[in-house]
Amino acid sequence: MKQIEKITPQKENFARWYTDVVQNGDLMAYGSTKGSIIFKPLSYGIWQNIQQNLDKEFKKLNVKNVYLPLLIPENLLNKEKDHLKGFNPELATITEVGGKKLSEKYFIRPTSETLFCDFFANEVESYNDLPLILNQWVNVLRWEKTTNPFLRTREFLWQEGHTIHATKKEAMDLTKKMINVYHKFLKDYLALPTIIGRKTEHEKFAGAEVTLTVEAMMKDGKALQSGTSHYIGQNFSKPFKIAFKNINNEEEYAYETSWGVSTRLLGALIMAHGDDRGIIIPPKIAPIQIDIVTLFANKNEGVLEAAKNIKKSLSKFRVELDSSDKMPGFKAANSEIHGTPIRIEVGPRDLETNEVIIVRRDTLEKIKCLIENIKEKVTKLLDEIQTNLYEKALERLNANFVVCENWEEFEKAISEQKFAVTLFEGNGEDEVKIKELTGASTRCILPKNSFNFKKSKCFYTNKKSNRIVIFAKAY
Amino acid sequence: MKQIEKITPQKENFARWYTDVVQNGDLMAYGSTKGSIIFKPLSYGIWQNIQQNLDKEFKKLNVKNVYLPLLIPENLLNKEKDHLKGFNPELATITEVGGKKLSEKYFIRPTSETLFCDFFANEVESYNDLPLILNQWVNVLRWEKTTNPFLRTREFLWQEGHTIHATKKEAMDLTKKMINVYHKFLKDYLALPTIIGRKTEHEKFAGAEVTLTVEAMMKDGKALQSGTSHYIGQNFSKPFKIAFKNINNEEEYAYETSWGVSTRLLGALIMAHGDDRGIIIPPKIAPIQIDIVTLFANKNEGVLEAAKNIKKSLSKFRVELDSSDKMPGFKAANSEIHGTPIRIEVGPRDLETNEVIIVRRDTLEKIKCLIENIKEKVTKLLDEIQTNLYEKALERLNANFVVCENWEEFEKAISEQKFAVTLFEGNGEDEVKIKELTGASTRCILPKNSFNFKKSKCFYTNKKSNRIVIFAKAY
Repeated sequence: MKQIEKITPQKENFARWYTDVVQNGDLMAYGSTKGSIIFKPLSYGIWQNIQQNLDKEFKKLNVKNVYLPLLIPENLLNKEKDHLKGFNPELATITEVGGKKLSEKYFIRPTSETLFCDFFANEVESYNDLPLILNQWVNVLRWEKTTNPFLRTREFLWQEGHTIHATKKEAMDLTKKMINVYHKFLKDYLALPTIIGRKTEHEKFAGAEVTLTVEAMMKDGKALQSGTSHYIGQNFSKPFKIAFKNINNEEEYAYETSWGVSTRLLGALIMAHGDDRGIIIPPKIAPIQIDIVTLFANKNEGVLEAAKNIKKSLSKFRVELDSSDKMPGFKAANSEIHGTPIRIEVGPRDLETNEVIIVRRDTLEKIKCLIENIKEKVTKLLDEIQTNLYEKALERLNANFVVCENWEEFEKAISEQKFAVTLFEGNGEDEVKIKELTGASTRCILPKNSFNFKKSKCFYTNKKSNRIVIFAKAY
Repeated sequence: MKQIEKITPQKENFARWYTDVVQNGDLMAYGSTKGSIIFKPLSYGIWQNIQQNLDKEFKKLNVKNVYLPLLIPENLLNKEKDHLKGFNPELATITEVGGKKLSEKYFIRPTSETLFCDFFANEVESYNDLPLILNQWVNVLRWEKTTNPFLRTREFLWQEGHTIHATKKEAMDLTKKMINVYHKFLKDYLALPTIIGRKTEHEKFAGAEVTLTVEAMMKDGKALQSGTSHYIGQNFSKPFKIAFKNINNEEEYAYETSWGVSTRLLGALIMAHGDDRGIIIPPKIAPIQIDIVTLFANKNEGVLEAAKNIKKSLSKFRVELDSSDKMPGFKAANSEIHGTPIRIEVGPRDLETNEVIIVRRDTLEKIKCLIENIKEKVTKLLDEIQTNLYEKALERLNANFVVCENWEEFEKAISEQKFAVTLFEGNGEDEVKIKELTGASTRCILPKNSFNFKKSKCFYTNKKSNRIVIFAKAY
């Protein structure tokens, strides 16, 4: 295996820091296909914990899991034109099998709206069959030109929820409910504060009427779209003929939503919490919550035995024991780069007084602890670390909003990699132009009055405005 | 939704019975692509339970989960010729993206040996890095010509374990260990007795040295290969250059294994346990263990309330309540076709004496039970059903072995859809011939002396033989 190499400090070059930690922290390796990555046990373990916990939240809302096929026949994707246009350049296309040309082309799913719609059309006859609230945990593929581990890879893993409803209101309510599920989940499990808002026309999902988003802030000040929930309305149900008899026995088209989070979340948690020693994984989703490391076990028989007993006493946590003969400094660095929330050092000197040293990964604080108190102490510390990670991230988020009332303020905020809070009435072309000039894109539209402005005027077009829009550079 | 339609009796036409129950039992729908299916909530729920429980068994053996890419570049698959030859006719091939031709072709993984090997080659330097014991839960695709829901579909879900080791012995031990994990898991969770054996040269996995298999018997007497574990040796490690410095500091090629079970298991459990009323799901992996159905709740206020209280008291189980106004007969049939292990009927008459009726799905026995005893009774019944399903399947398996010492006995056994136990020294060509004549293929080679024969002679070639081989028609 590769040795731990030097990690570029975040302040020196954040992008290089990121590449260093994901590779040296055993999170990923590059795959055999360009733009693809291998999820190693550590990153896949985090994803599995995200999956299991988020799935529990879904179940509380009666979401049922299904599995739909990977391939979309060409004729199916052609049915909704905006959707096709949005995805077409990135579609991996199967044209042959075993060297023989097929009569029809198939696309690897970039998302599964069309497949779900085709399925829904056969499942629904009357309002009694509604709502259908389905979800799947799958791989999808979009042939991106520039890629970045976890953040933008040609293939990624995600969940995609797809629902149909008898009324517009019910579908819109579900769209909102799901974005709130994401918001709370990211807070509670990933210690990630996010802003809920609506995407502009220019940034919304290809085929949706409304796209809601949760936007997070990374340590370098850039934004990361962390989850989206779309109200699709009847945009797909009409071409796909998802019709049902409503309560008045009239034929009506169903109202649809879709929503998803992906393995981008791994990128989010790395860049929101990591430091110059490596990543920091929030305890609730850490595949390993505690590393027990022995110090000088080869010189003292009691050390290994004590370490094993401690491991046993902590069996309700996810614990690993490193009892190798490697140097203490190496073992510490190894635990730190992998982001394990707590490290327990068991060495001969402290054993004399029945103590061990507990090291917090978030603050690097070293705490002496009697072995008999260890379970209680660790329970408390894991909670504290989870809370502390969230609070630090929230503090940073709040400190980096800048209300911008004119172009100068806006340019300055963006050049400092902050979230520019603006009044904005521009259209898609304006957004393209602003991005060319500053690198910033609209992240979301916020509820009215969530920030105070002196003037009711768009910072860019000078039109009258009270639409609050956040701009930021983004991943 | 579709109404429950008539199910063809098993005795009348087993294949049609199967198609009827998988469709009417809400297990699947046909996908938009020919040969593909949609896993509906019930079948996907069973698969999720298989996944979670089997994953726990893997974790006990220190198996780590990873995720490798979906696509295999053409040059990679070309490296191991037998393997390529085995899969080539079924390879779905990506030749273009967004309408533009690619310079290299990519295959959708039919299995991931080549991808793992490419990864292993970069990860391993010395014997200290070994063993690597990895697994992934993924979709794979093989462009099959004839398909059958769950049993043979172009795309299916599976787990594929891939390991490398420093010695042949260690790799061979792991190959055996994993087939035993499958054997025990199928017994304990799917109530499915299986025979462990070795595949013949003709039937083994393309690229393996040894293929071990667990073979189950369906209700119609046909065999179903339910899991395999391959000792691959150095067949891939040489072309892929997975070399390491061994303990004597000499360069050596690693020894490899791979092993998997797939969503075929859903087909196995349907055909091993189902009856003319529908499927029967073993309690341990049933997404819904108990259906509570109300009878005449619209005529008696107490019924719904009692049903809700019972549901609450059974919260440690997976329970659903059907309190609709549908007719009692319809509700019963609905629960039965979906294979829920236990149904509890709550009706006005029994409530007068604080009782309910519990119906076992396996025996259809109706049991009166005082509401206060219900939790205890259900706990016991679920255990009994799990055991009973296994015992009935085992009894059937044991009753349908036929020792065949000559061609006449063999032909008779196969025509009666039994497992023909033979002494067999034939080669691959003989196997092809026998299959043409009778429809039967070799299922596996059994350990010596596991059955008694009068003569030590091959039933087909008349050569001297003590190699015990099972033949059967198979899915």
